[in-house]
Amino acid sequence: MKGVVLGLRAWLVAGVLIATASTSSQPPNVVIMLMDDMGWGDLGCNGEPNRETPNLDQMAREGLIASSMYTAAPLCSPSYTPQNMVGGIPDDEVLLPELLAQKGYTSGLVGKWHLGHQPQYLPLKHGFDFWFGAPNCHFGPYADLLTPNIPVFLNDSMVGRYYEDFHIDKNNGVSNMTQLFTDAAVEFINREANRGPFFLLWAPDATHAPTYASEKYRGTSRRGRYGEAVRELDAGVGAILDALRAHQVDNNTLVVFTSDNGAALVSKYNGGSNGPFLCGKQTTFEGGMRAPGIFWWPGVIPAGTTTHQVSSENTQPSQPYEEAVAEWCGRRWICSRTAAQLAGVQTPQDRIYDGLALAKSLTHPQLEVQRPVFLYRGNRLMAVRRGPLKIHLWTFSTPTAELQKGINFCPGAEVPNVTTPTPTNHTARPILFNVEVDPGERYPVSHLSRTYKDAIQMLKKVVKEHEEKLVPGEPQLNWCDQAVMHWRPHGCEALKECLPIPQSNPYLCDWPH
Amino acid sequence: MKGVVLGLRAWLVAGVLIATASTSSQPPNVVIMLMDDMGWGDLGCNGEPNRETPNLDQMAREGLIASSMYTAAPLCSPSYTPQNMVGGIPDDEVLLPELLAQKGYTSGLVGKWHLGHQPQYLPLKHGFDFWFGAPNCHFGPYADLLTPNIPVFLNDSMVGRYYEDFHIDKNNGVSNMTQLFTDAAVEFINREANRGPFFLLWAPDATHAPTYASEKYRGTSRRGRYGEAVRELDAGVGAILDALRAHQVDNNTLVVFTSDNGAALVSKYNGGSNGPFLCGKQTTFEGGMRAPGIFWWPGVIPAGTTTHQVSSENTQPSQPYEEAVAEWCGRRWICSRTAAQLAGVQTPQDRIYDGLALAKSLTHPQLEVQRPVFLYRGNRLMAVRRGPLKIHLWTFSTPTAELQKGINFCPGAEVPNVTTPTPTNHTARPILFNVEVDPGERYPVSHLSRTYKDAIQMLKKVVKEHEEKLVPGEPQLNWCDQAVMHWRPHGCEALKECLPIPQSNPYLCDWPH
Repeated sequence: MKGVVLGLRAWLVAGVLIATASTSSQPPNVVIMLMDDMGWGDLGCNGEPNRETPNLDQMAREGLIASSMYTAAPLCSPSYTPQNMVGGIPDDEVLLPELLAQKGYTSGLVGKWHLGHQPQYLPLKHGFDFWFGAPNCHFGPYADLLTPNIPVFLNDSMVGRYYEDFHIDKNNGVSNMTQLFTDAAVEFINREANRGPFFLLWAPDATHAPTYASEKYRGTSRRGRYGEAVRELDAGVGAILDALRAHQVDNNTLVVFTSDNGAALVSKYNGGSNGPFLCGKQTTFEGGMRAPGIFWWPGVIPAGTTTHQVSSENTQPSQPYEEAVAEWCGRRWICSRTAAQLAGVQTPQDRIYDGLALAKSLTHPQLEVQRPVFLYRGNRLMAVRRGPLKIHLWTFSTPTAELQKGINFCPGAEVPNVTTPTPTNHTARPILFNVEVDPGERYPVSHLSRTYKDAIQMLKKVVKEHEEKLVPGEPQLNWCDQAVMHWRPHGCEALKECLPIPQSNPYLCDWPH
Repeated sequence: MKGVVLGLRAWLVAGVLIATASTSSQPPNVVIMLMDDMGWGDLGCNGEPNRETPNLDQMAREGLIASSMYTAAPLCSPSYTPQNMVGGIPDDEVLLPELLAQKGYTSGLVGKWHLGHQPQYLPLKHGFDFWFGAPNCHFGPYADLLTPNIPVFLNDSMVGRYYEDFHIDKNNGVSNMTQLFTDAAVEFINREANRGPFFLLWAPDATHAPTYASEKYRGTSRRGRYGEAVRELDAGVGAILDALRAHQVDNNTLVVFTSDNGAALVSKYNGGSNGPFLCGKQTTFEGGMRAPGIFWWPGVIPAGTTTHQVSSENTQPSQPYEEAVAEWCGRRWICSRTAAQLAGVQTPQDRIYDGLALAKSLTHPQLEVQRPVFLYRGNRLMAVRRGPLKIHLWTFSTPTAELQKGINFCPGAEVPNVTTPTPTNHTARPILFNVEVDPGERYPVSHLSRTYKDAIQMLKKVVKEHEEKLVPGEPQLNWCDQAVMHWRPHGCEALKECLPIPQSNPYLCDWPH
């Protein structure tokens, strides 16, 4: 495998703003709520039977649901980025907060970063003016005595560590981190609401295993522990929208709710729901990459609407292909021509952005642009979605080694020739689904049909263009080194939490896919 | 098998009314909208990704969603009742319209009857004052020249036949029957709205294969042909609610929307969606028996609420067990102590009704009564649902003979030891799911857990009580005879559509299960 993780630039391209839609002379505020491993089917408004997300459901009623929005990868980074990862976001990538700064935006990140944790990669070096959160996910990889626990930062200084100072009882699923992240988001809004345009990226990670919620949410969900995390995040959504209303900036703020990939289905109590979709996180089936999407902007986005625009939260992990993908907004390493469009700034002209400005779909949900979205697993182009069609060039469910450990990305699902336990090459005869008719990818379109023949024609064309124009990014996450772990984050001295740094010994990381 | 279809009395027991909740001195009107093979997941408000049911979604926003409402059987009658079936609804069963007549209600049925088609079984002999529709489903069994096509009745006279006078183009899925059924329902409301209380059972069958919609709906759905049927039915829901509003009786009318079983999954374009649930019609998994449920009564039922009350549309197909089941309302052969409660009439005292009056859950959605619901396939008790738990005593997916014909009740699903291709007895060690945590029945609760042990204790008790008190009904659908087919329905003379009746030759029907 040439580079397990591709260049990061492509992931920087997202966001939704539209200057023409804004009625105010000031460019709109942007709040992006990015969940971690929350599934499409976890929202009441997307059919979760227990309906435990009243704030999200109300947000959807007041805004727009994007039904066909894909993540750029079926997992978060797209390789998760543990503490011993050397690389991170390169300086020459222009992130959304850097773009928005041209128009006077103040940008805040609350929650998980995950774009590299060495000092040069941290949020305040990449356009954010404020940060409260952690560079890595709370799942660790370590919560022990031999290696450092994940630090929590306030701006550029560590203010403690998970499991030590910021407690997570991972056995019982209890932590007040979501409460802290919600409070920090509301405080950011309180500070910034009347000062100028702001961008807030709220990226709590309570729905990533081991899931957690505050003590007061224990036992409050019919869905168990995972549901408690969802309920607290839903309450956080309500608190953030309330803060916007309280400052009367709701009519000048675009709020986007989404997730970084499909729900992980490997365990019942630590994973969410992908609704009617096939499989979950790690896979390129609908359950792995179709994300919840709600866009809210009272007075601008028409209430109670749906767009079926096929879109991607980001551009693809392999870039740059101008025609590749329609894009919205999205992940924590966000910027976008769409964002730029809204704020009235130009994206840099020295690079190709393969995303599209789709803001018009927000104000005119019935509009649809026909664009292919390319679905990757690692470096491999697995499938293409375009219009109602989805074509699998390769299929792969759970690696045998994982299955043997009792891990299953597709529990309960078995579609012959599709949920294959090994990477299976279908490029000679791709498998076609109409995922509007068949969102569960259960009924392959017959190879003999006209639809199939036309789809293959289309596919060949767009894949050829994609591959010809593709310039694979520089891999950033290939090298690991124990020495880069959080032994001595800035601020550790004051806390007396500095640890001795071991000898540097870089090695090629071994990423599972 | 002793009697493939059990006595009908039990299915007569449903409906939801509550006298105390009515603010008017006149008892409330009742409209029950009963779909045919429409799945839980076919509604936008239940997460169908294409969101093509704006009227149902609005009805849900203005009313209450019942998330855990079961049908009495995983198919419609619970055996489908073709034309050669001799039996039907016995005279001593008291149907909802007969009960309501005591309070001056006028009752109308628009759509499919399916309670027997010989003259003595037809709707006007069993309490309905008006009927426009057919005694059998439009799927036939016959649309040919050798046996009679299904007649369509207006009150007690045939006014034509499917495929001859009432056209259904089953190859292209085109028919205006839903439009006719909607018009007839609206006309019934127009006639009755200002005359006294009325009961309307609207039972169109366009979502039963072969599905159909009016010409003007062709090509209007992202979901294909099935979606066109849903869209037209959704428009019908809107037209009916509009008629209630126009006559200003919406505040004195309970409207219930539900279906007769889960969506049939045997084909992509002729079947619907069961959302996150396992399998479909014919099975006792959630996909086979969890039905959509919306209750609408402006001013009485609180808007935008959900009840998780475990309930059954009807009492069980094997009766009478007083404690057996919480019940709502439902099918075309409807009556109920709940209905009686609302209208202020007593159910007959000479028989045991195994349903419960659950009307309080409509006005107080947070209330929940802990009652087991027993899930049967044919005569066999397959599973029990109580609270969040569901216990499978037997499992059975698709019979091998059907699989060999390419028919699959569980396409894409494979839960080891659960979606068994033959009836599999688990009574020695039942399989337990928490279907609130795990609506897809994918993660069996460990046999070693406390939850499991407690559930088995509970199960043994309720099953024992159920079986002790159970008095199996008299089978009504065992005998078949070509002579009882629709050769000469009343009214055929005027239409010149009478056919010669063959010699009577009764035989035991052979029902697939």
